[in-house]
This record gives sequence, structure tokens and C-alpha cells, in this order.
Amino acid sequence: MTFHGYFRSSSSYRCRIAFNIKGIDYDFRPVHLKSGAQTGEDFRALNPQKLVPALETGEGTTLIQSLAIIEWLDETHPEPPLLSRDPLTRAQERGFAQVIACEIHPLQNLRVLKYLTGELGASEDQKNAWLAQWLGDGLAACEGLLQKQAGDTRFCFGETPGLADICLVPQVFSAERFNVDISGLTRVREIYDNCAALPEFEGAHPKNQPDFEA
Amino acid sequence: MTFHGYFRSSSSYRCRIAFNIKGIDYDFRPVHLKSGAQTGEDFRALNPQKLVPALETGEGTTLIQSLAIIEWLDETHPEPPLLSRDPLTRAQERGFAQVIACEIHPLQNLRVLKYLTGELGASEDQKNAWLAQWLGDGLAACEGLLQKQAGDTRFCFGETPGLADICLVPQVFSAERFNVDISGLTRVREIYDNCAALPEFEGAHPKNQPDFEA
Repeated sequence: MTFHGYFRSSSSYRCRIAFNIKGIDYDFRPVHLKSGAQTGEDFRALNPQKLVPALETGEGTTLIQSLAIIEWLDETHPEPPLLSRDPLTRAQERGFAQVIACEIHPLQNLRVLKYLTGELGASEDQKNAWLAQWLGDGLAACEGLLQKQAGDTRFCFGETPGLADICLVPQVFSAERFNVDISGLTRVREIYDNCAALPEFEGAHPKNQPDFEA
Repeated sequence: MTFHGYFRSSSSYRCRIAFNIKGIDYDFRPVHLKSGAQTGEDFRALNPQKLVPALETGEGTTLIQSLAIIEWLDETHPEPPLLSRDPLTRAQERGFAQVIACEIHPLQNLRVLKYLTGELGASEDQKNAWLAQWLGDGLAACEGLLQKQAGDTRFCFGETPGLADICLVPQVFSAERFNVDISGLTRVREIYDNCAALPEFEGAHPKNQPDFEA
């Protein structure tokens, strides 16, 4: 398998955690987003959406979108599972992951921030207010969802990490990078710390990638 | 089952198509987004994210996020299937759906457009350019993905409608509503027309909902 990603991309980070939990080896091809490598012809032939991640499965197919890639990994490499076997719990896990992937992350990714400060002429303060709004509000929604759950589990949905944790950790990393205050989100913080202590998460951290740049 | 949605919400529209394809009846509770009903205490207790849709399953659980709801419907009411039985095709179907749900729709929803014209003071022209950028570029990526597929199928992934079509149709509806030019996207157009001809899609159209407002 050949994995095309970028060290700081949240959605690449999610896939790396999943690879590590599953113990799957892959060839890594860095796509330097900051210099626009994703818009080059070679990469567009792989992914017309011009976004990372993309996974060449080795069967002539390229998969895109992190959640689709992770569910495919989970279906083709079932142990350890990243989703509950119970359909209702699985739907809650997917819903939590999608709060992040469909409502928070898209508003903070590089191309959108570039558009804000470029085409729309937003100031640095306006960009920071935008980030505080969507990351703050979005992670507060995550906290609300976690508080609604019964019990005080080690991870979002139980005692082993899964899809929800895989999405939460890179989003908290981004919030910290953008100086968004999430100090009041106690369950989010607790689960983030529990995940960060695991080598599967630590090894997937942006700072530990071959294409890392300070 | 009690379904909380709004006639014009794309993600509610997706769920309605899925209900219709599956032939599932539900109680409908309109949430009037334009007047902010989603931020009221009653609704927030159901969904801390303050967004539609939300589905009370009748087992004391509320599901959120349209793709999670639709996959749950598909798992608990398997016929007719909305996803392929083949993991690789299923991953492509999910990826296509997520291009829309994770990259296009979040940038055009009501709260984001309100923030643009409110807090950021974007003009009507700037708002329209924003919409043209993300809807145009996003649907062009969908066209690219469809063109990469072998064959000239009636729907996105074969001869029966599924998750990808369920996401595509409301997104094309939005593009038309916002006057985004997608006339060059021939496969997108063709598949949209094939879907629109089905009563399951027609019955889910915003104009046919009890909370419709002109």
C-alpha cells in the first residue's frame, strides 16, 4: 500500500493512527501541501479532489477521504476493531467522528484559511476569531456528546481506542496549534491524554513524521 | 422513529431520500433553522452540536450526522442496500459521499454563510464567489471521480441508487439554488437527472416537505 499524506494534515494524521493500531506497514509518499504539490498533474490523476490523504491499495484502486480509508482498513484488517459490533453504538461512533470530519476540520484546513486571508482579506485577528469560533464550538459539541454518555470510559466509546478517538486527537492537536482555548473541556482533555500515552498515537504525531518541518 | 430536520437542509434531504428508498415511516419534527430553533434548550439536549438532522431511534438513543444515520438505517434495514457488499467499492462510495459531506457542504451551510456576511462583513459578491469556489471546485472533483470510473452507469456506482447519489442530489440542488454554474459537469448532471426521475428522490425534495417555505 502507498499512502500519500502530509505531516500536519489532520486527515493524514487520522489514517496514520489507524495504520499503527492495526499494525499495517505502508510506503509513505509526502505531498507538500504548503508548496501546492496536491494541485500537480501527478497527484490530481490520483485524486481529482486535490487533497490528501490518498491510499493506493495495490489493487489498482486509489481510496480517498480519511474516514472511508479507515473503515476500509477496519473491514479488511478486522483486529483490533475500530468500531463497535453493535449497530447503534457504531452509529454513535461514526456520528462523533463526523462532527469533527464534516463540521470542524473543513473550516480550518489550509485552503480555506488561505482563501480567508487572501481573497477575503481577513486580518490575522479575524482568522483567529474564525478558528476560535469553529474549533471552539465544535470541540464543545464533542464534549457535550461525551458528557451524554454513561460512564467514565478511558476512550470516547469504551476501554479501547476507536474511530472517534482517531478523529479527536488530531483535532485537539490543531486547536492547540491555533491557540484555541479548550481548557474547560474536561472529558476531551482526559481522553486526549489517554490516547497520547499510547505508542500508536505518539508514532502518528506530526512531529514524528519523515516530512516534518518545524 | 422521530426525525428532526429542516426542508432546505442538505443533510436532512439526504436522510429523507434514504428513508424513502428503504420505505421507512417516521415522525417528522421540523426545526426552523432560520429562526434559530436549533440553538434552543430542547434541541440542544438532543444534539449538543445544534445542527440538524437528529434521529430519535425509539430506543432512547439520538443519532446525529446524516452519513452515520444513513449507514445505521442501511445496517438495520438491509434492503435495498445503499452500499456495495464489496469492501473496496464500498470505500469508494463512502469516499465520494465524504467529498460532499466533509469538503463541500460544510462551507456552504447557513451558519457559515451567516458568519461570512456578519462577522467578516463579506459583500453579496464575495459570498457568491465563496460559494462558486467551494461548490464549483467540489462538484468538479465529483465529476472527476465519476469520470475515473469504468462504464456509463445510471447512478454513481451502478444501476441502483446508493449513498453517493443520496449525497450528490442535495448538493446539486444547493448549487442551483446558489446559481453556481455546473453546466460542464456532464456525468453529475446525467446522474442527477436519473435520480430526480425516481419517486424516492422526488418525495424527498425540499419543495415537497411539510415545513417548506418559498
